[in-house]
Amino acid sequence: MASTANQIIHCKGKPLVIEEVVVAPPQAMEVRIKILYTALCHTDVYFWEAKGQSPLFPRIFGHEAGGIVESVGEGVTELKPGDHVLPIFTGECRACAHCKSEQSNMCELLRINTERGVMIEDGKSRFSIKGQPIYHFLGTSTFSEYTVVHSGCVAKINPSAPLDTVFVLSCGFCTGFGATVNVAKPPKGSTVAVFGLGAVGLAAAEGARFSGASRIIGVDVNPNKFEQAKKFGVTEFVNPKDHNKPVQEVLVEMTNGGVDRSIECTGNVQAMISAFESVHDGWGVAVLVGVPSKDDVFKTHPLNFLTERTLKGTFYGNFKPRTDIPLVVEKYMNKEIELEKFITHSVPFSEINTAFDLMLKGEGIRCLIRMKE
Amino acid sequence: MASTANQIIHCKGKPLVIEEVVVAPPQAMEVRIKILYTALCHTDVYFWEAKGQSPLFPRIFGHEAGGIVESVGEGVTELKPGDHVLPIFTGECRACAHCKSEQSNMCELLRINTERGVMIEDGKSRFSIKGQPIYHFLGTSTFSEYTVVHSGCVAKINPSAPLDTVFVLSCGFCTGFGATVNVAKPPKGSTVAVFGLGAVGLAAAEGARFSGASRIIGVDVNPNKFEQAKKFGVTEFVNPKDHNKPVQEVLVEMTNGGVDRSIECTGNVQAMISAFESVHDGWGVAVLVGVPSKDDVFKTHPLNFLTERTLKGTFYGNFKPRTDIPLVVEKYMNKEIELEKFITHSVPFSEINTAFDLMLKGEGIRCLIRMKE
Ligand SMILES: NC(=O)c1ccc[n+]([C@@H]2O[C@H](COP(=O)([O-])OP(=O)(O)OC[C@H]3O[C@@H](n4cnc5c(N)ncnc54)[C@H](O)[C@@H]3O)[C@@H](O)[C@H]2O)c1
Ligand SMILES: NC(=O)c1ccc[n+]([C@@H]2O[C@H](COP(=O)([O-])OP(=O)(O)OC[C@H]3O[C@@H](n4cnc5c(N)ncnc54)[C@H](O)[C@@H]3O)[C@@H](O)[C@H]2O)c1
Ligand SMILES: [Zn+2]
Ligand SMILES: [Zn+2]
Ligand SMILES: [Zn+2]
Ligand SMILES: [Zn+2]
Repeated sequence: MASTANQIIHCKGKPLVIEEVVVAPPQAMEVRIKILYTALCHTDVYFWEAKGQSPLFPRIFGHEAGGIVESVGEGVTELKPGDHVLPIFTGECRACAHCKSEQSNMCELLRINTERGVMIEDGKSRFSIKGQPIYHFLGTSTFSEYTVVHSGCVAKINPSAPLDTVFVLSCGFCTGFGATVNVAKPPKGSTVAVFGLGAVGLAAAEGARFSGASRIIGVDVNPNKFEQAKKFGVTEFVNPKDHNKPVQEVLVEMTNGGVDRSIECTGNVQAMISAFESVHDGWGVAVLVGVPSKDDVFKTHPLNFLTERTLKGTFYGNFKPRTDIPLVVEKYMNKEIELEKFITHSVPFSEINTAFDLMLKGEGIRCLIRMKE
Repeated sequence: MASTANQIIHCKGKPLVIEEVVVAPPQAMEVRIKILYTALCHTDVYFWEAKGQSPLFPRIFGHEAGGIVESVGEGVTELKPGDHVLPIFTGECRACAHCKSEQSNMCELLRINTERGVMIEDGKSRFSIKGQPIYHFLGTSTFSEYTVVHSGCVAKINPSAPLDTVFVLSCGFCTGFGATVNVAKPPKGSTVAVFGLGAVGLAAAEGARFSGASRIIGVDVNPNKFEQAKKFGVTEFVNPKDHNKPVQEVLVEMTNGGVDRSIECTGNVQAMISAFESVHDGWGVAVLVGVPSKDDVFKTHPLNFLTERTLKGTFYGNFKPRTDIPLVVEKYMNKEIELEKFITHSVPFSEINTAFDLMLKGEGIRCLIRMKE
């Protein structure tokens, strides 16, 4: 390991077309990580399709991963080569108002930034092919054997935790689980609706089970999602396409006035509106998690708020990556949460296209991508 | 007093045209109240103009008032003739899921209902003129010397509290004050924006002062409101008409990213959107209080939620009328809150039109209407 530190490393990278990429050494406050396991999240597909944003290409996607620190840049004191880590798409500087607030994980310096393709230190990329820069994505770019990440975006975890399982904590699981336990906070015995039964939605359901919800209603337009969702504690299913009225009306009828909590994990703006209008007046709380398109507009009658409903949203389930994630790993080690069931497929890096196909077809949950065969 | 109990009482009623009205005796679970003091709230004007709803006329308006119980119907055990009371437009049955929830004051049985003009007991009105029914409004109809109200909508208060002052607790004050202290809950030292500086907004500002906010920014399109608002702890003023960009952008600049809390007390849907978009990402909470028009649509980009803002709404500041209001009266008796400054004018009932004029012109805060000269 030490022999590659502070040197230029050639490695594979870039989704779909695998090419030799040069990965420069970490600069001040950065770490270079050897990625062992990664997976595709819908957010990668969304930005790969470039629905919302001005695309910044070529770039290296990937933000759900686990690896080992290979070398650290100047000023990095809390991480050293050999540490087991999860790179995280939103960081924690521990100095800004957000990091000091108990509510927020939107760190002023290191918050998710889908437009920036370079490192903060010098405004440059650490990736290149034949001298041409290749952009970073979400500060993580884990579809690469080696990547360079700001040290504030790295969770140092228990080295005995299996990286091929806990890697799901670096996006999908924590996003959904945290949306429920940190933001929606369903009281014991409540009824929770989850819109979208991908990895994020199933993790939200896992959060509802963990919180002691008694009814967990899964809503998805793809009925193939229902069978596997049963393993995640989802007790009832609603396919909006089976009804000729808005799905919020169906849920309000099923629950005698509305669900206590709803978590939207689809990215579809109509589902966001339905999730909000499904919650009970007086105490209902809806939480948005899905990433909307650029021109989407959330619309509802203001009386739906006046009748004492609450609407919130969250990135990364409001978890602070450095402070909270090592503790979530411990929850897994203590068998309080189950992660294995999220990983339904596994392929070597050379077959990353299979992971794209599975997600586009809506099959499986997470497809583990192994960086070495 | 006893001689009028269980009898038909003739009295004045109906705003603008004062006529002799017959007030029938209270039926099961109802009380007949002799109104001593009342005032006009913007909600009366709104429904009098019949902007939103299918108008139910003729009816007796008024819902902010104080009085004395004159007689009680069958089954009423907690109230007796002579009790000092505030009739309240939303009730508390103490048996439904809302009454049992700590969050909600939207009682299943007795919640605010702007369409019902009759008593729940028998679906009939207790008011008539020459045998023709005159409808109730908001279950209170306080623009009348006597009114009949469900006992669940009556707060029994300390008889030594001055009714000509604490009557403001029955709507305006508690609505705004509760929106801040019960719903927005600004932490000590925070920055709070209040949209609309009528009685409700000024009470919201009073709630911010009470919570220890360090900056209280008043937003109103009527600059005449600013001078009197200084007495309510408002420290800065913004008139949206003075700027050629949306007022939310002005507030975000003034506060380095947004206010910690905003309370909308205007009823204008654009102000609702501005109030929400003015709060800081990460932790900001906006609370809607103003009553919107029927066709209003609240519109915003869903990313404004995803970046960890919260939007809520409230009726009557989330206070439960029977349980909480007697305690708010004690807060006034202990000089923890100031109420006198809300009452800027005073007229006898015969001059009720003056109160309408003052509100339509946006002058003063509350105009006390004295039922007996
Ligand atoms: N806020 C965050 O921090 C964060 C983090 C990760 C992912 N995300 C977002 O969360 C969402 C879910 O991610 P995922 O990886 O689980 O995606 P996924 O594609 O695996 O799952 C989405 C599910 O939603 C369903 N769906 C789509 N439209 C629907 C509709 N109108 N009604 C009901 N169901 C519908 C799909 O059938 C699918 O099963 C995506 O929008 C992703 O971008 C947000
Ligand atoms: N939710 C509840 O339980 C409840 C209870 C009582 C009153 N209300 C509502 O609260 C609102 C305020 O009531 P009030 O009695 O204080 O009314 P008011 O008329 O005395 O005050 C409203 C203020 O808002 C200002 N305003 C109007 N449009 C504005 C805009 N676009 N931007 C900034 N300021 C604007 C006006 O100039 C005025 O000063 C009304 O909509 C009323 O119906 C709600
Ligand atoms: Zn993701
Ligand atoms: Zn920070
Ligand atoms: Zn009112
Ligand atoms: Zn009730």
